[in-house]
Amino acid sequence: MAQFDVVGIGNAIVDVVARVEEEFLSRHDMRKGAMALIDAEAAAKLYAAMPAGIESSGGSAANTCAVAAGFGARVAYLGKVADDQLGGVFRHDITAAGVHFPSAPLAGGVPTARCLIMVTPDGQRTMNTYLGACVAFGEDDVDTKLVADASVLYLEGYLFDPPAAQAAFRRAAAAAHAAGRQVALSLSDAFCVDRHRAAFLDLVRGEVDILFANETEITSLYEANRFEDALEQARTDVGLAALTRSEAGSVIVRGAETVEILAAPATVVDTTGAGDAYAAGFLAGLTQGRALPVCGRLGSLAAAAVIGRYGARPEGDLRALAATAG
Amino acid sequence: MAQFDVVGIGNAIVDVVARVEEEFLSRHDMRKGAMALIDAEAAAKLYAAMPAGIESSGGSAANTCAVAAGFGARVAYLGKVADDQLGGVFRHDITAAGVHFPSAPLAGGVPTARCLIMVTPDGQRTMNTYLGACVAFGEDDVDTKLVADASVLYLEGYLFDPPAAQAAFRRAAAAAHAAGRQVALSLSDAFCVDRHRAAFLDLVRGEVDILFANETEITSLYEANRFEDALEQARTDVGLAALTRSEAGSVIVRGAETVEILAAPATVVDTTGAGDAYAAGFLAGLTQGRALPVCGRLGSLAAAAVIGRYGARPEGDLRALAATAG
Repeated sequence: MAQFDVVGIGNAIVDVVARVEEEFLSRHDMRKGAMALIDAEAAAKLYAAMPAGIESSGGSAANTCAVAAGFGARVAYLGKVADDQLGGVFRHDITAAGVHFPSAPLAGGVPTARCLIMVTPDGQRTMNTYLGACVAFGEDDVDTKLVADASVLYLEGYLFDPPAAQAAFRRAAAAAHAAGRQVALSLSDAFCVDRHRAAFLDLVRGEVDILFANETEITSLYEANRFEDALEQARTDVGLAALTRSEAGSVIVRGAETVEILAAPATVVDTTGAGDAYAAGFLAGLTQGRALPVCGRLGSLAAAAVIGRYGARPEGDLRALAATAG
Repeated sequence: MAQFDVVGIGNAIVDVVARVEEEFLSRHDMRKGAMALIDAEAAAKLYAAMPAGIESSGGSAANTCAVAAGFGARVAYLGKVADDQLGGVFRHDITAAGVHFPSAPLAGGVPTARCLIMVTPDGQRTMNTYLGACVAFGEDDVDTKLVADASVLYLEGYLFDPPAAQAAFRRAAAAAHAAGRQVALSLSDAFCVDRHRAAFLDLVRGEVDILFANETEITSLYEANRFEDALEQARTDVGLAALTRSEAGSVIVRGAETVEILAAPATVVDTTGAGDAYAAGFLAGLTQGRALPVCGRLGSLAAAAVIGRYGARPEGDLRALAATAG
């Protein structure tokens, strides 16, 4: 038996969350709902313009790992923070969530990554990421022994952005497959897919066993006009795909099998981390050998728990929540 | 006319807020609802034991300043942060709230102060403060010209804890009175009053024009068994006292005048900052020349806005809220 159910690799980021009006987005040329990369100077400028906010640990794969651990999965995470206060916050929070986090911090370099998140009154989040220490994450940071000892390797698409991470990505996937493990990928963001489409397609077709994406991401990947067309391509390309459609729920395809899952009811406060939480619930179920409809319901419940509050990670007892999924 | 309505002086602190069960408090020997001072080592140990949380700017007088600015008051703040990431967060948030914050950061010393806040399921908060850079705040940090240019000088009782702050406290009060301004004091915490009772009584009788306290603080100050007895002593000692009693509302005394204010309805999520917000609403009204019942209602509304959410500072449009106070 593997020591871990899931090992995640991703950009280790601290979120800075503030409420803004719609007008703030247009004034700062932001694409609503998307994630944009910004440099240190732009980050300082945007932060100065932002209202007062709260800070909390984030990072797409890190969110998934924290939530999966909350469901009782045995989880590890690899990612690069700096040796600074925000790095300490990140390390504290993921460790407190029950996730094994062995990555050494980057000393004396750039600071821990920050994601400046604007939440509009409709609950939508628009993100601006300063990658900071994440750009130092490379092949040597992949603990191949740890990867070989986890049932599922979970990678976030955002890892295509820092220059050295794609090589790390491939090394991790090779280590997982060599040990007979599965490789899962989340597409993360439609614009991220757009920036790296050829590399994504190559990886999806060659290395990915389990694919997570929302409607805009999967149609962007395949440059499809209709969700149904993208779905069929995903069915051909990967062993298992879980595709989310916001309030329309999700569709899971595995070979000829198709499972449709309803969204769990939620009052939308802040959609930050909804996709990450869905993947967490899904993987927690899958690694415990549950049937696909149960995995999907766990994903929907986790997403609803995150959407109903501020921040990317839910509060409360996720195991009790899981019991309601059957 | 004074350039500012209020200038606050206090411990500049970043809050780390996490939910815990009651049992966590007893296991770590905490007095529920109180603020305890801890050193760097104890802070590191407690932080390691805490669940994942969120970080947000705090500090009692700083909260009051941020909320008063939200009500449209012209506000400045003096306090000591370090030249580090959390100091940057504190500076950003109080500035974003519209508060003038001219204090230079402490370079190369201890880090910015942190308050580790445990919120129990009943919404009560229990605080553990590592004072960090705040201990460096002294007489020389009092900008007497700024103090002379504000209608009300607002001081938090917690300032009695760092060693050099009492002298700063007295210099600020002297500068305010020399310019014909008023001095307001919040007692902050019953145990803080207990630690410094003689100095508090001396200050209250000699320097304070406006006193804020809750029931346990005012009875602690006068070592009174009954709230009513403490209230009469406050009536004698200070020109104006606003005494809060949680869900029982507040009582305001000014000479022979007594005004009773109902608490505004609120769902209790987290009581952190409720007293700070009350003082903010009250002072915003007072410096705009409003009658005492209106000042009290503004205080109650501000407290309710803070109690209904996580963290010590409210969200949303406080000016619109103020309109409902009459």
